[in-house]
Amino acid sequence: MDNRPIGVFDSGVGGLTVVRELRRILPQENIVYFGDTGRVPYGTRSRSTITRYTQQDIAFLESRDVKMIVIACGTASSVISKELGAKIKVPYTGVILPAAQAACSLTQKGVIGVIGTTATIRSGAYGKSIRSINSACKVIGRDCPLFVPLVENGLIEPQNPITRLTAQMYLEPLMQEGIDTLILGCTHYPLLYDLINDVIGYSAVLIDPGKETAHFVQNFLTTNNLLREEESPAVCQYFVSDSADQFTATASKFLGADLGGNVQQIEIEAIQGA
Amino acid sequence: MDNRPIGVFDSGVGGLTVVRELRRILPQENIVYFGDTGRVPYGTRSRSTITRYTQQDIAFLESRDVKMIVIACGTASSVISKELGAKIKVPYTGVILPAAQAACSLTQKGVIGVIGTTATIRSGAYGKSIRSINSACKVIGRDCPLFVPLVENGLIEPQNPITRLTAQMYLEPLMQEGIDTLILGCTHYPLLYDLINDVIGYSAVLIDPGKETAHFVQNFLTTNNLLREEESPAVCQYFVSDSADQFTATASKFLGADLGGNVQQIEIEAIQGA
Repeated sequence: MDNRPIGVFDSGVGGLTVVRELRRILPQENIVYFGDTGRVPYGTRSRSTITRYTQQDIAFLESRDVKMIVIACGTASSVISKELGAKIKVPYTGVILPAAQAACSLTQKGVIGVIGTTATIRSGAYGKSIRSINSACKVIGRDCPLFVPLVENGLIEPQNPITRLTAQMYLEPLMQEGIDTLILGCTHYPLLYDLINDVIGYSAVLIDPGKETAHFVQNFLTTNNLLREEESPAVCQYFVSDSADQFTATASKFLGADLGGNVQQIEIEAIQGA
Repeated sequence: MDNRPIGVFDSGVGGLTVVRELRRILPQENIVYFGDTGRVPYGTRSRSTITRYTQQDIAFLESRDVKMIVIACGTASSVISKELGAKIKVPYTGVILPAAQAACSLTQKGVIGVIGTTATIRSGAYGKSIRSINSACKVIGRDCPLFVPLVENGLIEPQNPITRLTAQMYLEPLMQEGIDTLILGCTHYPLLYDLINDVIGYSAVLIDPGKETAHFVQNFLTTNNLLREEESPAVCQYFVSDSADQFTATASKFLGADLGGNVQQIEIEAIQGA
């Protein structure tokens, strides 16, 4: 038993899709969320800058006495090396390994597509993770830098012509490679689930790393006897680096529900990363 | 005569379009440029965060002993109040007043469109500036948040179907209002000059605030006898808050030429703004 909260962070609001799933399958758990809304997006920045920001985010969550850290951001997950992971003071998971495991167990032909931010794809982290599980798998990556702004501007209806044209541009080369499994390697992409399925003609199974990661957390806490056992209702606390109001206004789109907790602005730049 | 450099800053690379024009019309001037590439974009953030970042950018340029500061970023320009402006230790200009003056002198019907980031349009800064020159003008603003990612991903050819559809979505309501003048209120938008002209059927004169601002600087330095008079070749120095390599790779797209100077990464977060 461990009554401390689970810590979750993301470069912005996208990680709320992980919170959503955590709240669904672990409704008794307290959650502390940090969204780096003052410095979002991470996916277009250099590896060294992403690493520095990620270390500050982790240090902030550690300061909130969490029992586990969930790196909900695909880009931040992609920079966590063994050395960096060794510095994290509590158990943690990124989104990459849980998604890679799901992809390896679902693919029939061993041809897996991965879409994500430019930094995530450039890192090759998904490919390394998948090949460490099944070295025979072929992994084809493609960055989709316009998907985040399209989602953030609400152009997510499956028939939206702008988003469809963009998805065709990105996904056709993957389909030509014969993928049968597609990892939606950025927290924003599950909001395009129906549109992507339609554009690829249901030719591949779509994997949502956020969902896989929430299930990984559930397994880990259960196996290690770290679930919360207090009977009081669970509490969510949200911290952001830009204005709390702006976060509140867009949060429900990703959370699919009310925040169920307070939002507070902090100065992440002042935090000393490990 | 003043041999000190001109300071120019922007949230990222876009402000290089102003540097390009400055180098063309004031080739003897030294330039210090700062691009806040570690925290770009500004246009989606809250006013208070934009203001804090802008104050740090100004403090950095002041520390480089510049004779004048050019706020090349539309979003940063839009948060400069009288109080904030009074704290700047050297003469300065944003992009808004020069563009507003050009629009007021060019409009025939007095119906002016302004496109920009969400923060710029929300601020109403262009409308206030235009009405302070000619209170009879009607100003219609529209934020175009997808234009920056489209430009940064190179989808700028006039016939690109994704960018054309996006431009139609944003610009048709402005055309229906009968604008005859359109301010391209974000440094990235002039890269869509031909596409926008084509989409609106040349029904409005397009104004590039960067160009207008460069001419304002030329007039100001000439009138106040502040031009550089050394005979050695002019030098440009570039500072960024993300990796120098990444900046160098994309800079030429905006500058239309070689950087003609060194790029150095700094920690803008450590700067104490006024």
